[in-house]
Amino acid sequence: MSKPMKTQVAIVGGGPSGMLLSLLLAKEGIESIVIERSSRDHVLSRIRAGVLEWTSVELLRRAGVGERMDREGHVHAGTRVAWRGADHMLIDSQKWAGKPFMAYGQTYVTEDLYAAVDSIDGLVLDECDDVVLNELLDNPYVTFKRQGEEYRVDAQFIAGCDGYHGVSRQSIPDTVLKTFEKVYPFGWLGVMSETPPLEDLWYVQHERGFALASQRSPMLSRYYVQCPITDKVEDWSDERFWDELITRFPPDIAAQITTGPSIEKSIAPLRSFVSEPMRYGHLFLAGDAAHIVPPTGAKGLNLAMSDVYYLWRALTLKLQTGSDELIDRYSATALDRVWKTERFSWWMTSLLHVFPEHSAFDHRTQAAELDSIEASEHAQAWLAEQYAGFPIEDWG
Amino acid sequence: MSKPMKTQVAIVGGGPSGMLLSLLLAKEGIESIVIERSSRDHVLSRIRAGVLEWTSVELLRRAGVGERMDREGHVHAGTRVAWRGADHMLIDSQKWAGKPFMAYGQTYVTEDLYAAVDSIDGLVLDECDDVVLNELLDNPYVTFKRQGEEYRVDAQFIAGCDGYHGVSRQSIPDTVLKTFEKVYPFGWLGVMSETPPLEDLWYVQHERGFALASQRSPMLSRYYVQCPITDKVEDWSDERFWDELITRFPPDIAAQITTGPSIEKSIAPLRSFVSEPMRYGHLFLAGDAAHIVPPTGAKGLNLAMSDVYYLWRALTLKLQTGSDELIDRYSATALDRVWKTERFSWWMTSLLHVFPEHSAFDHRTQAAELDSIEASEHAQAWLAEQYAGFPIEDWG
Repeated sequence: MSKPMKTQVAIVGGGPSGMLLSLLLAKEGIESIVIERSSRDHVLSRIRAGVLEWTSVELLRRAGVGERMDREGHVHAGTRVAWRGADHMLIDSQKWAGKPFMAYGQTYVTEDLYAAVDSIDGLVLDECDDVVLNELLDNPYVTFKRQGEEYRVDAQFIAGCDGYHGVSRQSIPDTVLKTFEKVYPFGWLGVMSETPPLEDLWYVQHERGFALASQRSPMLSRYYVQCPITDKVEDWSDERFWDELITRFPPDIAAQITTGPSIEKSIAPLRSFVSEPMRYGHLFLAGDAAHIVPPTGAKGLNLAMSDVYYLWRALTLKLQTGSDELIDRYSATALDRVWKTERFSWWMTSLLHVFPEHSAFDHRTQAAELDSIEASEHAQAWLAEQYAGFPIEDWG
Repeated sequence: MSKPMKTQVAIVGGGPSGMLLSLLLAKEGIESIVIERSSRDHVLSRIRAGVLEWTSVELLRRAGVGERMDREGHVHAGTRVAWRGADHMLIDSQKWAGKPFMAYGQTYVTEDLYAAVDSIDGLVLDECDDVVLNELLDNPYVTFKRQGEEYRVDAQFIAGCDGYHGVSRQSIPDTVLKTFEKVYPFGWLGVMSETPPLEDLWYVQHERGFALASQRSPMLSRYYVQCPITDKVEDWSDERFWDELITRFPPDIAAQITTGPSIEKSIAPLRSFVSEPMRYGHLFLAGDAAHIVPPTGAKGLNLAMSDVYYLWRALTLKLQTGSDELIDRYSATALDRVWKTERFSWWMTSLLHVFPEHSAFDHRTQAAELDSIEASEHAQAWLAEQYAGFPIEDWG
């Protein structure tokens, strides 16, 4: 016997997209149930992105989860880029796009969202197994098992916020779904350390590979170096990691890096992925369920947030007034921003990494592109504007 | 017995770079001899580029060869770009860089330069065989055969303006010369026809490949379509060419194209090439002898002209005052502009062509890049600024 439940929006996935959508819908008086495969502890312990576009900051504030972010997050006017071991410039989003950004860990965002959903007694079911999406074209419902019981949640709409490996996208028939993919021939080795971060964020293009300095809090630093995708974490002692990082940074900046024991170390592959359309009947995909960007440019979480914004507005209009206007435009509108952002993330990745297949000609044009950007205010403005985030249509 | 001659600057190559340099040096009272391998008729009949950056226009005027160009050339504020079969925008160099450009065929430029050099009794030796550059580090001289006679030209400096296949670059020892190259997996099929051209210049990105509409005069049109590099001119009847061109253009623009019999038809490969350094002892390379760009963006002739400008100023300073200041900076200064321009030409080529190895993801990001540019004034400004030409240092 399955346990029957009913809601307006079944949200598959309890990561930041699903939780933010649940919270925003609740503000409109719209009921939802979040269905998550992992345990709450697992979701809350994931280490992911750390840079929020200003529109993401404003959306989190609007959802009522801005308090700790505004207290503990670090506002930056821009990010620094270094190349050829010495040159560097600021990607000045404040100056060119009129918007700064916020360094605030995704782990904290997720914590804040769970706390907020709990505070309004939102329903979040974790550890759900065998999640299946049914009858998406007419009478959608989600079935799953949880703690030995079988569940059935009937809903008017289903939001697929369950990431790249989730069931939502896979529930769209192959005849409908088109996918686009690019895999990069390297990974990012990331280290977290309880050391004071550099004052600025840094992207470094170096002949040995890309390097990045980011931050999560005043005593928590996040660093990355590009590494072969075949490397294992065990290949990288803390000492080897710091040596490599310091070699890639310009000497004057490297001298300011405080090293220390790693508290987390992992290797992530880089991937570009888009699926179309983002709607199938009563199912709407948002975030990583529909698209993945390589981390260069920090667009993954921010793209998820613009999807959630559009989906929130579209579902609200539909459920409050019956109008299909925005739900009918959701997929195309979200995808326009997705593709521009995919292009930007691919471009930032190509601009800053060493590709094994690149020739000496490619290395020179890569440096010449950074030189050209440095030499042109128009180029700097375009880079900064994209880094600040592509425009979002005003859907209220 | 060789026929001995003496001059201040031996110019190897009688194309537009060499002839312009000869003319500019003469204005400073500096003697030169131009040594050309082909016949004058052959040089004057070559069909090449047709778009002059404004700094090239000004340099030609300064050399005293602007009269016919200013009378018959067509000034354009920008070039139009079309994609996805319908969208289009203007690369507005006038608006964003404060400079228009001139459509005026390289064939005419070369004619004007020969007429001007003839009018001052400049010495241009054509049909020179077995050209050899000797003792470049100390007492440079050029030897060659001409009409059965052996020649030796002693000079203080040698300007290598003899193109990609010329002897000048090959005279720099392998231990000194570094080369960088990229070959593209397609060619340009070009057709010249005595039909009225479109009012504007057009670059077209289409799923079947790039297409271009250009012009040489009010009754002379130049069109191109991207084609497989393995194609032969015989594969392309006039009818097939026009069908393909019209298919690739947006329908409203295609309707304005006047077709007619081709008077010239050829397939050109696309190549990016740079050699470093551009100076070896008393030898200075300029133009195609040192670098090739793919034709997208029309930078080849313009890059040659900025080299000639720098070289003219550097040799003038040296020969008039003895100062090495500018000749010592020639290679690095010219190469900075060369690499930025190589990057731009590669980028324009990637943005607008179909690459056989491209995935569906790449096709979408290509369109998304054009969409992103259209949506951003900063992006349009950067594109227009580069299309108008990278800045040239003021050397007097």
